Amino acid sequence: MSRTARLIGVGMGPGDPELVTLKALRVLREADVVAHFAKAGHASRGRAIAAGHIRPDTIELPLFYPVTTEIPKDAAAYGDSIATFYDASAAAIAAHLEQRRCVAVVCEGDPLFYGSYMHIHVRLCPRYPAEVIAGVTGMSGCWSAIGKPIAQGDDVFTVLPGTLTEDELARRLTDADAAAVMKIGRNLPKVRRALDRAGRLPSAIYIERGTMADAMVMRLADKPDDSAPYFAMVLVAGFERWPREGTR
Amino acid sequence: MSRTARLIGVGMGPGDPELVTLKALRVLREADVVAHFAKAGHASRGRAIAAGHIRPDTIELPLFYPVTTEIPKDAAAYGDSIATFYDASAAAIAAHLEQRRCVAVVCEGDPLFYGSYMHIHVRLCPRYPAEVIAGVTGMSGCWSAIGKPIAQGDDVFTVLPGTLTEDELARRLTDADAAAVMKIGRNLPKVRRALDRAGRLPSAIYIERGTMADAMVMRLADKPDDSAPYFAMVLVAGFERWPREGTR
Repeated sequence: MSRTARLIGVGMGPGDPELVTLKALRVLREADVVAHFAKAGHASRGRAIAAGHIRPDTIELPLFYPVTTEIPKDAAAYGDSIATFYDASAAAIAAHLEQRRCVAVVCEGDPLFYGSYMHIHVRLCPRYPAEVIAGVTGMSGCWSAIGKPIAQGDDVFTVLPGTLTEDELARRLTDADAAAVMKIGRNLPKVRRALDRAGRLPSAIYIERGTMADAMVMRLADKPDDSAPYFAMVLVAGFERWPREGTR
Repeated sequence: MSRTARLIGVGMGPGDPELVTLKALRVLREADVVAHFAKAGHASRGRAIAAGHIRPDTIELPLFYPVTTEIPKDAAAYGDSIATFYDASAAAIAAHLEQRRCVAVVCEGDPLFYGSYMHIHVRLCPRYPAEVIAGVTGMSGCWSAIGKPIAQGDDVFTVLPGTLTEDELARRLTDADAAAVMKIGRNLPKVRRALDRAGRLPSAIYIERGTMADAMVMRLADKPDDSAPYFAMVLVAGFERWPREGTR
Protein backbone atom coordinates (compact mmCIF):
# COMPACT_ATOMS: atom_id res chain seq x y z
CA MET A 1 0.00 0.00 0.00
CA SER A 2 1.34 3.42 -0.87
CA ARG A 3 1.90 5.94 1.92
CA THR A 4 0.89 9.01 -0.04
CA ALA A 5 -2.57 10.03 -1.23
CA ARG A 6 -2.67 10.03 -5.02
CA LEU A 7 -5.59 10.49 -7.39
CA ILE A 8 -4.93 9.25 -10.92
CA GLY A 9 -7.27 9.36 -13.91
CA VAL A 10 -6.14 6.47 -16.08
CA GLY A 11 -6.95 6.38 -19.80
CA MET A 12 -7.55 2.74 -20.77
CA GLY A 13 -7.92 3.34 -24.51
CA PRO A 14 -10.76 2.50 -26.89
CA GLY A 15 -11.45 -1.12 -25.97
CA ASP A 16 -8.72 -3.39 -27.37
CA PRO A 17 -6.77 -4.44 -24.22
CA GLU A 18 -3.55 -4.17 -26.23
CA LEU A 19 -4.17 -0.45 -26.79
CA VAL A 20 -3.39 0.26 -23.14
CA THR A 21 -0.20 2.21 -22.37
CA LEU A 22 2.70 1.05 -20.22
CA LYS A 23 1.98 3.95 -17.88
CA ALA A 24 -1.62 2.88 -17.34
CA LEU A 25 -0.49 -0.66 -16.53
CA ARG A 26 2.12 0.54 -14.06
CA VAL A 27 -0.42 2.67 -12.24
CA LEU A 28 -2.92 -0.20 -12.09
CA ARG A 29 -0.24 -2.32 -10.42
CA GLU A 30 0.53 0.46 -7.93
CA ALA A 31 -3.04 1.45 -7.08
CA ASP A 32 -4.61 0.56 -3.74
CA VAL A 33 -8.07 1.38 -5.06
CA VAL A 34 -9.48 1.08 -8.58
CA ALA A 35 -12.61 3.17 -9.19
CA HIS A 36 -14.75 3.06 -12.32
CA PHE A 37 -17.91 4.66 -13.65
CA ALA A 38 -20.70 2.46 -14.95
CA LYS A 39 -24.34 2.50 -15.82
CA ALA A 40 -26.32 0.75 -13.07
CA GLY A 41 -26.67 -2.92 -13.94
CA HIS A 42 -23.89 -2.80 -16.53
CA ALA A 43 -20.16 -3.54 -16.39
CA SER A 44 -17.90 -0.52 -16.70
CA ARG A 45 -16.08 -0.48 -20.04
CA GLY A 46 -12.95 1.00 -18.47
CA ARG A 47 -13.02 -1.73 -15.82
CA ALA A 48 -13.42 -4.44 -18.46
CA ILE A 49 -10.31 -3.25 -20.32
CA ALA A 50 -8.36 -3.15 -17.05
CA ALA A 51 -9.57 -6.60 -15.95
CA GLY A 52 -6.39 -8.57 -16.54
CA HIS A 53 -4.18 -6.05 -14.79
CA ILE A 54 -5.83 -5.43 -11.43
CA ARG A 55 -4.16 -7.09 -8.41
CA PRO A 56 -6.37 -9.49 -6.39
CA ASP A 57 -5.93 -7.40 -3.22
CA THR A 58 -6.95 -4.12 -4.88
CA ILE A 59 -10.01 -2.41 -3.42
CA GLU A 60 -12.68 -1.83 -6.06
CA LEU A 61 -14.96 1.20 -6.01
CA PRO A 62 -17.72 1.13 -8.64
CA LEU A 63 -19.49 4.45 -9.24
CA PHE A 64 -22.93 3.92 -10.74
CA TYR A 65 -24.55 6.75 -12.71
CA PRO A 66 -27.95 7.56 -11.19
CA VAL A 67 -29.51 8.47 -14.54
CA THR A 68 -28.34 8.17 -18.11
CA THR A 69 -30.84 8.36 -20.92
CA GLU A 70 -33.98 8.42 -18.76
CA ILE A 71 -34.08 12.21 -18.28
CA PRO A 72 -33.52 14.74 -21.11
CA LYS A 73 -30.08 16.30 -20.68
CA ASP A 74 -31.42 19.85 -20.84
CA ALA A 75 -33.73 19.20 -17.90
CA ALA A 76 -32.72 20.89 -14.64
CA ALA A 77 -33.39 17.61 -12.86
CA TYR A 78 -30.67 15.90 -14.92
CA GLY A 79 -28.09 18.57 -14.06
CA ASP A 80 -28.95 18.45 -10.36
CA SER A 81 -28.91 14.68 -10.25
CA ILE A 82 -25.61 14.29 -12.07
CA ALA A 83 -23.92 17.04 -10.04
CA THR A 84 -25.04 15.36 -6.81
CA PHE A 85 -23.68 12.06 -8.15
CA TYR A 86 -20.27 13.56 -8.94
CA ASP A 87 -20.18 15.21 -5.50
CA ALA A 88 -20.92 11.87 -3.82
CA SER A 89 -18.41 10.02 -6.04
CA ALA A 90 -15.70 12.55 -5.21
CA ALA A 91 -16.49 12.15 -1.50
CA ALA A 92 -16.22 8.35 -1.76
CA ILE A 93 -12.83 8.68 -3.44
CA ALA A 94 -11.70 11.35 -0.98
CA ALA A 95 -12.37 8.94 1.89
CA HIS A 96 -9.71 6.63 0.42
CA LEU A 97 -7.33 9.53 -0.23
CA GLU A 98 -7.68 10.52 3.43
CA GLN A 99 -6.34 7.02 4.21
CA ARG A 100 -3.28 7.90 2.07
CA ARG A 101 -4.27 5.47 -0.62
CA CYS A 102 -3.50 5.64 -4.32
CA VAL A 103 -6.82 5.74 -6.19
CA ALA A 104 -6.83 4.97 -9.92
CA VAL A 105 -10.03 5.95 -11.76
CA VAL A 106 -10.04 3.80 -14.88
CA CYS A 107 -11.64 5.47 -17.90
CA GLU A 108 -12.38 4.24 -21.38
CA GLY A 109 -10.53 6.34 -23.97
CA ASP A 110 -8.81 9.51 -22.78
CA PRO A 111 -9.90 10.80 -19.33
CA LEU A 112 -10.16 14.54 -20.04
CA PHE A 113 -11.74 14.17 -23.49
CA TYR A 114 -15.50 13.95 -22.88
CA GLY A 115 -14.86 11.65 -19.91
CA SER A 116 -16.59 11.47 -16.53
CA TYR A 117 -13.28 11.51 -14.67
CA MET A 118 -12.90 15.27 -15.23
CA HIS A 119 -15.75 15.91 -12.80
CA ILE A 120 -13.83 14.06 -10.09
CA HIS A 121 -10.57 15.76 -11.05
CA VAL A 122 -11.86 19.33 -10.72
CA ARG A 123 -13.48 18.54 -7.38
CA LEU A 124 -10.44 16.87 -5.79
CA CYS A 125 -7.30 18.31 -7.42
CA PRO A 126 -7.35 21.43 -5.21
CA ARG A 127 -7.05 19.17 -2.14
CA TYR A 128 -5.03 16.11 -3.23
CA PRO A 129 -2.14 15.33 -5.58
CA ALA A 130 -3.84 14.44 -8.87
CA GLU A 131 -2.51 13.34 -12.22
CA VAL A 132 -3.94 12.15 -15.50
CA ILE A 133 -2.62 9.47 -17.84
CA ALA A 134 -3.59 10.12 -21.45
CA GLY A 135 -5.18 7.27 -23.37
CA VAL A 136 -5.93 6.41 -26.99
CA THR A 137 -9.32 7.94 -27.81
CA GLY A 138 -12.22 5.94 -29.17
CA MET A 139 -12.13 7.96 -32.38
CA SER A 140 -8.41 7.23 -32.97
CA GLY A 141 -9.14 3.57 -32.35
CA CYS A 142 -11.92 3.67 -34.96
CA TRP A 143 -10.11 5.40 -37.83
CA SER A 144 -7.04 3.26 -37.22
CA ALA A 145 -9.04 0.02 -37.19
CA ILE A 146 -10.48 0.84 -40.60
CA GLY A 147 -7.22 2.33 -41.96
CA LYS A 148 -8.89 5.65 -42.81
CA PRO A 149 -6.66 8.76 -42.80
CA ILE A 150 -8.84 11.31 -41.02
CA ALA A 151 -7.01 14.65 -41.38
CA GLN A 152 -3.82 16.02 -42.89
CA GLY A 153 -2.04 19.27 -43.61
CA ASP A 154 -4.32 22.28 -43.16
CA ASP A 155 -7.48 20.24 -42.57
CA VAL A 156 -9.82 21.48 -39.84
CA PHE A 157 -11.06 18.53 -37.77
CA THR A 158 -14.15 18.85 -35.61
CA VAL A 159 -15.69 16.61 -32.96
CA LEU A 160 -19.47 16.95 -32.89
CA PRO A 161 -21.76 15.46 -30.25
CA GLY A 162 -24.78 13.91 -31.97
CA THR A 163 -26.92 15.67 -29.37
CA LEU A 164 -26.64 18.99 -31.26
CA THR A 165 -29.62 20.17 -33.32
CA GLU A 166 -29.89 19.10 -36.95
CA ASP A 167 -29.28 22.68 -38.15
CA GLU A 168 -26.18 23.00 -35.98
CA LEU A 169 -24.84 19.64 -37.12
CA ALA A 170 -25.45 20.46 -40.79
CA ARG A 171 -23.79 23.87 -40.50
CA ARG A 172 -20.72 22.50 -38.75
CA LEU A 173 -20.39 19.47 -41.04
CA THR A 174 -20.45 21.83 -44.02
CA ASP A 175 -17.73 23.95 -42.41
CA ALA A 176 -15.32 21.16 -41.37
CA ASP A 177 -12.84 19.31 -43.57
CA ALA A 178 -13.05 16.25 -41.33
CA ALA A 179 -15.34 15.30 -38.47
CA ALA A 180 -16.14 12.68 -35.89
CA VAL A 181 -19.75 12.57 -34.69
CA MET A 182 -20.08 10.92 -31.29
CA LYS A 183 -23.00 10.02 -29.02
CA ILE A 184 -24.98 8.52 -31.88
CA GLY A 185 -27.68 6.26 -30.37
CA ARG A 186 -31.14 7.73 -30.82
CA ASN A 187 -29.58 10.72 -32.65
CA LEU A 188 -28.76 8.67 -35.75
CA PRO A 189 -31.71 9.75 -37.97
CA LYS A 190 -30.90 13.42 -37.22
CA VAL A 191 -27.17 12.89 -37.83
CA ARG A 192 -27.94 11.19 -41.14
CA ARG A 193 -30.17 14.08 -42.29
CA ALA A 194 -27.54 16.64 -41.26
CA LEU A 195 -24.80 14.79 -43.17
CA ASP A 196 -27.05 14.64 -46.22
CA ARG A 197 -27.74 18.40 -46.06
CA ALA A 198 -24.00 19.05 -45.75
CA GLY A 199 -23.26 16.87 -48.77
CA ARG A 200 -21.12 14.56 -46.63
CA LEU A 201 -23.36 11.50 -46.38
CA PRO A 202 -21.64 9.63 -49.27
CA SER A 203 -18.30 9.67 -47.41
CA ALA A 204 -19.65 9.12 -43.88
CA ILE A 205 -18.62 5.86 -42.20
CA TYR A 206 -20.64 4.27 -39.40
CA ILE A 207 -18.71 2.29 -36.75
CA GLU A 208 -19.70 0.25 -33.70
CA ARG A 209 -17.14 -1.25 -31.30
CA GLY A 210 -14.35 -0.04 -33.61
CA THR A 211 -11.36 -1.78 -32.04
CA MET A 212 -13.09 -4.97 -30.95
CA ALA A 213 -13.26 -8.35 -32.65
CA ASP A 214 -17.00 -7.86 -33.27
CA ALA A 215 -16.63 -4.41 -34.85
CA MET A 216 -19.31 -3.32 -37.32
CA VAL A 217 -18.25 -0.92 -40.06
CA MET A 218 -20.20 0.31 -43.09
CA ARG A 219 -20.93 3.39 -45.16
CA LEU A 220 -23.69 5.19 -43.27
CA ALA A 221 -25.56 5.51 -46.57
CA ASP A 222 -25.67 1.70 -46.70
CA LYS A 223 -26.97 1.23 -43.15
CA PRO A 224 -30.54 0.03 -43.62
CA ASP A 225 -31.91 1.03 -40.21
CA ASP A 226 -31.58 3.78 -37.64
CA SER A 227 -30.83 1.67 -34.58
CA ALA A 228 -27.45 2.42 -33.02
CA PRO A 229 -25.84 2.23 -29.59
CA TYR A 230 -24.86 5.43 -27.81
CA PHE A 231 -21.15 4.70 -28.32
CA ALA A 232 -21.39 4.23 -32.08
CA MET A 233 -19.47 6.82 -34.09
CA VAL A 234 -19.67 8.41 -37.54
CA LEU A 235 -16.45 9.50 -39.24
CA VAL A 236 -16.07 11.88 -42.17
CA ALA A 237 -12.49 11.91 -43.45
CA GLY A 238 -10.88 15.10 -44.72
CA PHE A 239 -8.07 13.37 -46.51
CA GLU A 240 -10.17 12.49 -49.54
CA ARG A 241 -10.68 16.14 -50.38
CA TRP A 242 -7.04 16.30 -51.50
CA PRO A 243 -6.85 14.73 -54.96
CA ARG A 244 -3.07 14.70 -55.08
CA GLU A 245 -2.59 12.68 -51.92
CA GLY A 246 -5.94 10.95 -51.54
CA THR A 247 -6.68 7.30 -52.06
CA ARG A 248 -6.68 6.52 -55.75
CA MET B 1 12.04 -12.99 -39.79
CA SER B 2 8.37 -13.13 -40.68
CA ARG B 3 7.30 -14.97 -43.83
CA THR B 4 4.45 -12.64 -44.76
CA ALA B 5 4.64 -9.08 -46.06
CA ARG B 6 3.05 -6.73 -43.52
CA LEU B 7 2.95 -2.94 -43.46
CA ILE B 8 2.13 -1.47 -40.04
CA GLY B 9 1.79 2.18 -39.11
CA VAL B 10 2.65 2.29 -35.42
CA GLY B 11 1.48 5.16 -33.20
CA MET B 12 4.21 5.82 -30.62
CA GLY B 13 2.30 8.41 -28.61
CA PRO B 14 3.16 12.00 -27.71
CA GLY B 15 6.73 11.62 -26.46
CA ASP B 16 6.75 10.04 -23.00
CA PRO B 17 8.08 6.51 -23.64
CA GLU B 18 5.60 5.17 -21.06
CA LEU B 19 2.68 6.40 -23.18
CA VAL B 20 3.36 3.67 -25.74
CA THR B 21 0.76 0.89 -26.06
CA LEU B 22 1.34 -2.83 -25.57
CA LYS B 23 0.35 -3.34 -29.20
CA ALA B 24 3.01 -0.93 -30.47
CA LEU B 25 5.67 -2.69 -28.40
CA ARG B 26 4.62 -6.11 -29.66
CA VAL B 27 4.83 -4.96 -33.28
CA LEU B 28 8.25 -3.38 -32.73
CA ARG B 29 9.49 -6.74 -31.43
CA GLU B 30 8.01 -8.54 -34.44
CA ALA B 31 9.14 -6.13 -37.15
CA ASP B 32 11.96 -6.98 -39.55
CA VAL B 33 12.25 -3.35 -40.65
CA VAL B 34 11.58 -0.16 -38.69
CA ALA B 35 11.03 2.91 -40.89
CA HIS B 36 10.70 6.48 -39.61
CA PHE B 37 10.23 9.96 -41.03
CA ALA B 38 12.64 12.70 -40.03
CA LYS B 39 13.80 16.12 -41.02
CA ALA B 40 17.24 15.82 -42.67
CA GLY B 41 19.92 16.23 -40.03
CA HIS B 42 17.51 15.60 -37.16
CA ALA B 43 16.55 12.51 -35.19
CA SER B 44 13.03 11.22 -35.84
CA ARG B 45 10.78 11.81 -32.84
CA GLY B 46 8.92 8.54 -33.45
CA ARG B 47 12.25 6.70 -33.62
CA ALA B 48 13.43 8.32 -30.38
CA ILE B 49 10.35 7.09 -28.51
CA ALA B 50 10.83 3.58 -29.94
CA ALA B 51 14.56 3.51 -29.15
CA GLY B 52 14.50 1.14 -26.20
CA HIS B 53 12.27 -1.40 -27.94
CA ILE B 54 13.94 -2.05 -31.31
CA ARG B 55 15.81 -5.35 -31.61
CA PRO B 56 19.53 -5.08 -32.49
CA ASP B 57 19.05 -7.10 -35.68
CA THR B 58 16.20 -4.94 -36.98
CA ILE B 59 16.79 -3.22 -40.32
CA GLU B 60 16.35 0.55 -40.01
CA LEU B 61 14.97 2.65 -42.84
CA PRO B 62 15.09 6.41 -42.22
CA LEU B 63 12.96 8.53 -44.57
CA PHE B 64 14.23 12.10 -44.70
CA TYR B 65 11.85 14.86 -45.75
CA PRO B 66 13.31 16.75 -48.73
CA VAL B 67 11.85 20.10 -47.68
CA THR B 68 10.03 21.29 -44.61
CA THR B 69 9.80 25.00 -43.90
CA GLU B 70 12.00 26.20 -46.77
CA ILE B 71 9.23 26.37 -49.39
CA PRO B 72 5.77 27.87 -48.75
CA LYS B 73 3.25 25.05 -48.48
CA ASP B 74 0.92 26.56 -51.08
CA ALA B 75 3.69 26.60 -53.70
CA ALA B 76 3.33 24.01 -56.45
CA ALA B 77 7.01 23.15 -55.98
CA TYR B 78 6.29 22.05 -52.40
CA GLY B 79 3.44 19.78 -53.45
CA ASP B 80 5.49 18.22 -56.25
CA SER B 81 8.52 17.72 -54.05
CA ILE B 82 6.61 16.16 -51.17
CA ALA B 83 4.56 13.90 -53.47
CA THR B 84 7.76 12.66 -55.12
CA PHE B 85 9.21 12.03 -51.67
CA TYR B 86 6.20 9.97 -50.56
CA ASP B 87 6.32 8.01 -53.82
CA ALA B 88 10.01 7.22 -53.28
CA SER B 89 9.45 6.37 -49.59
CA ALA B 90 6.62 4.00 -50.52
CA ALA B 91 8.88 2.35 -53.11
CA ALA B 92 11.67 1.88 -50.55
CA ILE B 93 9.21 0.24 -48.15
CA ALA B 94 7.65 -1.85 -50.94
CA ALA B 95 11.09 -3.30 -51.71
CA HIS B 96 11.15 -4.79 -48.20
CA LEU B 97 7.53 -5.96 -48.47
CA GLU B 98 8.45 -7.77 -51.69
CA GLN B 99 10.99 -9.68 -49.55
CA ARG B 100 8.05 -10.72 -47.31
CA ARG B 101 9.26 -8.59 -44.45
CA CYS B 102 7.19 -6.96 -41.72
CA VAL B 103 7.76 -3.20 -41.96
CA ALA B 104 6.78 -1.02 -38.97
CA VAL B 105 6.60 2.71 -39.70
CA VAL B 106 6.97 4.36 -36.31
CA CYS B 107 5.05 7.62 -35.95
CA GLU B 108 4.85 10.19 -33.20
CA GLY B 109 1.28 10.49 -31.90
CA ASP B 110 -1.48 8.75 -33.87
CA PRO B 111 -0.56 7.68 -37.43
CA LEU B 112 -3.71 8.72 -39.31
CA PHE B 113 -4.21 12.01 -37.42
CA TYR B 114 -2.14 14.61 -39.32
CA GLY B 115 0.68 12.06 -39.67
CA SER B 116 3.02 11.39 -42.61
CA TYR B 117 2.35 7.65 -42.46
CA MET B 118 -1.05 8.09 -44.17
CA HIS B 119 0.73 8.96 -47.42
CA ILE B 120 2.51 5.60 -47.32
CA HIS B 121 -0.64 3.78 -46.30
CA VAL B 122 -2.78 5.00 -49.21
CA ARG B 123 -0.01 4.18 -51.69
CA LEU B 124 0.67 0.65 -50.45
CA CYS B 125 -2.54 -0.71 -48.87
CA PRO B 126 -4.04 -1.66 -52.24
CA ARG B 127 -1.06 -4.00 -52.85
CA TYR B 128 0.03 -5.28 -49.40
CA PRO B 129 -1.62 -6.24 -46.10
CA ALA B 130 -1.57 -3.01 -44.08
CA GLU B 131 -2.71 -2.16 -40.58
CA VAL B 132 -2.57 0.81 -38.27
CA ILE B 133 -2.01 0.88 -34.52
CA ALA B 134 -3.65 3.89 -32.91
CA GLY B 135 -1.53 5.99 -30.56
CA VAL B 136 -2.08 8.65 -27.92
CA THR B 137 -2.16 12.01 -29.75
CA GLY B 138 0.10 14.92 -28.86
CA MET B 139 -2.92 16.99 -27.87
CA SER B 140 -4.21 14.31 -25.44
CA GLY B 141 -0.72 14.13 -23.98
CA CYS B 142 -0.72 17.91 -23.47
CA TRP B 143 -4.09 18.37 -21.79
CA SER B 144 -3.48 15.33 -19.61
CA ALA B 145 -0.04 16.55 -18.54
CA ILE B 146 -1.52 19.84 -17.33
CA GLY B 147 -4.69 18.22 -15.93
CA LYS B 148 -6.98 20.40 -18.05
CA PRO B 149 -10.40 18.98 -18.97
CA ILE B 150 -10.71 19.91 -22.64
CA ALA B 151 -14.30 19.05 -23.61
CA GLN B 152 -17.42 17.59 -22.05
CA GLY B 153 -21.07 16.97 -22.72
CA ASP B 154 -22.29 18.82 -25.80
CA ASP B 155 -19.04 20.75 -26.35
CA VAL B 156 -17.83 21.10 -29.94
CA PHE B 157 -14.08 20.52 -30.08
CA THR B 158 -12.07 21.70 -33.08
CA VAL B 159 -8.48 21.09 -34.19
CA LEU B 160 -7.08 24.09 -36.05
CA PRO B 161 -3.78 24.17 -37.92
CA GLY B 162 -1.97 27.43 -37.11
CA THR B 163 -1.34 27.76 -40.84
CA LEU B 164 -4.91 29.03 -41.43
CA THR B 165 -5.44 32.76 -42.03
CA GLU B 166 -6.03 35.03 -39.06
CA ASP B 167 -9.64 35.66 -40.13
CA GLU B 168 -10.30 31.95 -40.45
CA LEU B 169 -8.71 31.19 -37.09
CA ALA B 170 -10.67 33.97 -35.37
CA ARG B 171 -13.95 32.86 -36.92
CA ARG B 172 -13.46 29.22 -35.97
CA LEU B 173 -12.18 29.98 -32.46
CA THR B 174 -15.32 32.06 -31.88
CA ASP B 175 -17.48 29.18 -33.08
CA ALA B 176 -15.87 26.35 -31.07
CA ASP B 177 -16.42 25.49 -27.42
CA ALA B 178 -12.95 23.98 -27.19
CA ALA B 179 -9.97 23.99 -29.52
CA ALA B 180 -6.43 22.77 -30.03
CA VAL B 181 -4.27 24.92 -32.32
CA MET B 182 -1.37 22.96 -33.78
CA LYS B 183 1.59 23.83 -36.03
CA ILE B 184 2.41 26.94 -34.03
CA GLY B 185 6.03 27.94 -34.85
CA ARG B 186 6.13 31.12 -36.91
CA ASN B 187 2.31 31.29 -36.80
CA LEU B 188 2.26 32.27 -33.12
CA PRO B 189 1.73 36.06 -33.54
CA LYS B 190 -1.20 35.38 -35.88
CA VAL B 191 -2.66 32.73 -33.57
CA ARG B 192 -2.40 35.13 -30.64
CA ARG B 193 -4.22 37.90 -32.54
CA ALA B 194 -6.95 35.48 -33.65
CA LEU B 195 -7.48 34.25 -30.08
CA ASP B 196 -7.70 37.85 -28.89
CA ARG B 197 -10.30 38.72 -31.55
CA ALA B 198 -12.31 35.63 -30.55
CA GLY B 199 -12.20 36.62 -26.89
CA ARG B 200 -10.38 33.39 -26.04
CA LEU B 201 -6.88 34.69 -25.31
CA PRO B 202 -7.39 34.83 -21.51
CA SER B 203 -8.06 31.09 -21.35
CA ALA B 204 -5.52 29.97 -23.99
CA ILE B 205 -2.67 27.80 -22.73
CA TYR B 206 0.67 27.54 -24.53
CA ILE B 207 2.54 24.21 -24.31
CA GLU B 208 5.90 22.95 -25.59
CA ARG B 209 7.01 19.31 -25.21
CA GLY B 210 3.85 18.62 -23.19
CA THR B 211 4.60 15.12 -21.93
CA MET B 212 8.36 15.48 -21.50
CA ALA B 213 10.37 16.28 -18.38
CA ASP B 214 11.34 19.66 -19.84
CA ALA B 215 7.76 20.69 -20.71
CA MET B 216 7.00 24.43 -20.85
CA VAL B 217 3.45 25.48 -19.96
CA MET B 218 2.04 28.97 -19.49
CA ARG B 219 -0.98 31.12 -20.23
CA LEU B 220 -0.40 32.38 -23.77
CA ALA B 221 -1.27 35.89 -22.53
CA ASP B 222 1.74 35.63 -20.21
CA LYS B 223 4.21 34.49 -22.88
CA PRO B 224 6.52 37.47 -23.37
CA ASP B 225 7.78 36.64 -26.86
CA ASP B 226 6.55 35.11 -30.11
CA SER B 227 9.21 32.47 -30.60
CA ALA B 228 7.84 28.92 -30.66
CA PRO B 229 8.75 25.57 -32.16
CA TYR B 230 6.55 24.07 -34.86
CA PHE B 231 5.31 21.35 -32.50
CA ALA B 232 4.17 23.74 -29.78
CA MET B 233 0.42 23.72 -29.15
CA VAL B 234 -2.23 26.11 -27.86
CA LEU B 235 -5.22 24.70 -25.99
CA VAL B 236 -8.54 26.41 -25.28
CA ALA B 237 -10.65 24.34 -22.90
CA GLY B 238 -14.41 24.18 -23.28
CA PHE B 239 -15.05 22.81 -19.83
CA GLU B 240 -14.75 26.20 -18.16
CA ARG B 241 -17.77 27.51 -20.02
CA TRP B 242 -19.98 25.32 -17.84
CA PRO B 243 -20.35 27.07 -14.47
CA ARG B 244 -22.03 24.13 -12.77
CA GLU B 245 -19.29 21.63 -13.55
CA GLY B 246 -16.29 23.89 -14.16
CA THR B 247 -13.29 24.33 -11.88
CA ARG B 248 -14.27 26.39 -8.88
